[in-house]
Amino acid sequence: MSTLLLVVPSHWAEVWIPPLAELAPELNVRVYGRDEHDSRDIDYVLTFRPPHGVLKSLPNLKAVFSLGAGVDGILSDPEYPRRVPLIRFVDHTLSREMAQYCVLHVLMHYRMQRFFDHAQAEHKWRQALLPRRAQDTRVGILGLGEIGTLTAERLRDLHFAVAGWSRNRRSVSGVESFAGQKELSAFLARTDILICLLPLTPDTRDILNADLFARLPPGAFVINVARGGHLVEADLIQAIDSGHLSGATLDVFNTEPLPEDNPLWTHPKITVTPHIAAISEPRVAAQYVADGIARFERGQPLGNIVDPARGY
Amino acid sequence: MSTLLLVVPSHWAEVWIPPLAELAPELNVRVYGRDEHDSRDIDYVLTFRPPHGVLKSLPNLKAVFSLGAGVDGILSDPEYPRRVPLIRFVDHTLSREMAQYCVLHVLMHYRMQRFFDHAQAEHKWRQALLPRRAQDTRVGILGLGEIGTLTAERLRDLHFAVAGWSRNRRSVSGVESFAGQKELSAFLARTDILICLLPLTPDTRDILNADLFARLPPGAFVINVARGGHLVEADLIQAIDSGHLSGATLDVFNTEPLPEDNPLWTHPKITVTPHIAAISEPRVAAQYVADGIARFERGQPLGNIVDPARGY
Repeated sequence: MSTLLLVVPSHWAEVWIPPLAELAPELNVRVYGRDEHDSRDIDYVLTFRPPHGVLKSLPNLKAVFSLGAGVDGILSDPEYPRRVPLIRFVDHTLSREMAQYCVLHVLMHYRMQRFFDHAQAEHKWRQALLPRRAQDTRVGILGLGEIGTLTAERLRDLHFAVAGWSRNRRSVSGVESFAGQKELSAFLARTDILICLLPLTPDTRDILNADLFARLPPGAFVINVARGGHLVEADLIQAIDSGHLSGATLDVFNTEPLPEDNPLWTHPKITVTPHIAAISEPRVAAQYVADGIARFERGQPLGNIVDPARGY
Repeated sequence: MSTLLLVVPSHWAEVWIPPLAELAPELNVRVYGRDEHDSRDIDYVLTFRPPHGVLKSLPNLKAVFSLGAGVDGILSDPEYPRRVPLIRFVDHTLSREMAQYCVLHVLMHYRMQRFFDHAQAEHKWRQALLPRRAQDTRVGILGLGEIGTLTAERLRDLHFAVAGWSRNRRSVSGVESFAGQKELSAFLARTDILICLLPLTPDTRDILNADLFARLPPGAFVINVARGGHLVEADLIQAIDSGHLSGATLDVFNTEPLPEDNPLWTHPKITVTPHIAAISEPRVAAQYVADGIARFERGQPLGNIVDPARGY
């Protein structure tokens, strides 16, 4: 019998245990910090942001399952045992939800929904023409993986002019592809609405900073739905307050939950949502872990294995 | 030389005249109520909601161009000369904008954006799971013409379960089609988010009423982006306040501009926008009129001629 250790906050563990018991009844499930266990017995770990050193302390660990598409919370552990396979949770439903979130917030901005919200609050009938046609509105997506590609396709179908930027050139029909550091400036210069969907790695940490904002055209809008660590919050506020950027929508933050006194909450040009662009459904995540362990034990290849050097 | 009479508010006329002068320089353009003209000289009219009797008073009128996809404002004139061809303005850009508006407001509702807006206003980190997956969320579109079809396709691609209702059965890939009065109840019973995109005719006036709302499942949401005349506003408020409907988004109203003291402005579960789902761009509309007149004068067939008996 294999043992899975859940290294997650205990209120999360409560949620994952029932579907795991149903879908992998042969699995022995322990919760870190709650259940006693012998570290030598642990075969697998399911985690998102484990305390540093915990994974290293498990001598017989066979694989680590990430509870999200991003694994930065795991790789940021300096003692992460890099020879243990780390599997990213690539859930097509999560990808779709993330793309939906991006479509919603691109449209809220493009269609001036906040302007109309304010008019409604004042009971004022304030008509306004859209500032430009969708085909003249350039959306730029940082990161063209599964989620970025889906997002690009949906926005393309709504007639926006869509481009993506990624490490290597990608081919997505009707979407312009920019690749590598060399083409980042050209990508930014043609981007009216920037969406960050990058993995968080040492290369991409703080990428949304004053220097990058300055390379966007005046009036550009920023959507960060990847990780709080991509964004230098003070630089964003400054770029908006100077009038260079028109606003932002943020779903992720350097500190989560976002503290009540953080100025992002009250900025009139910033929409804050509480990291809800895509939330793993317990049953789907439990299935991914159950399937992954079964494949591993039969010696079958596993998909979505992270390259720790690359960070995703 | 032909003469076109603009029967529109004078501030609209200011906007249409320059592109008309550019695109149809041979056309003599007069503005009703502002420029003197002999009624016998008028060959064509461009209008949206003409004062009753004006069109009848033009003995040599050859064609009427509508300044919108809906022609109810013209056909509601009891003295409308029904033998004069009436041409609807079918602008693909307008159709796309209307579809965008519907996608935006379906997503705002489905993704609980108002809930997160309130949480932001209180600086509260309130995470919430979506109540159900998109594929289990049933969008129903009243009216499957060009705009309804585009809207259905975009929402289908975002993985909603989409159906449409129309006079005759329509074939749109991945979209369930309901047809005629006989199938209206079945359509409503399976609809969580109802979008009205119908033409306004005597058959569809007041169609969004207490009886129809009662046939929607509890918690349903209503979006009206067609005409104010489709909706019985008091019935909507009552259906929301009773808890049966979860809310609504309205872009069109019985009286426009919506009066400042109308209760719709302040209802916490209703989003009001000022008839901006799609606004004709002067240049595009001028092109449609210039092309239409040129075709008419060469004896070529015109598209989008309204059947006055049907009303669209």
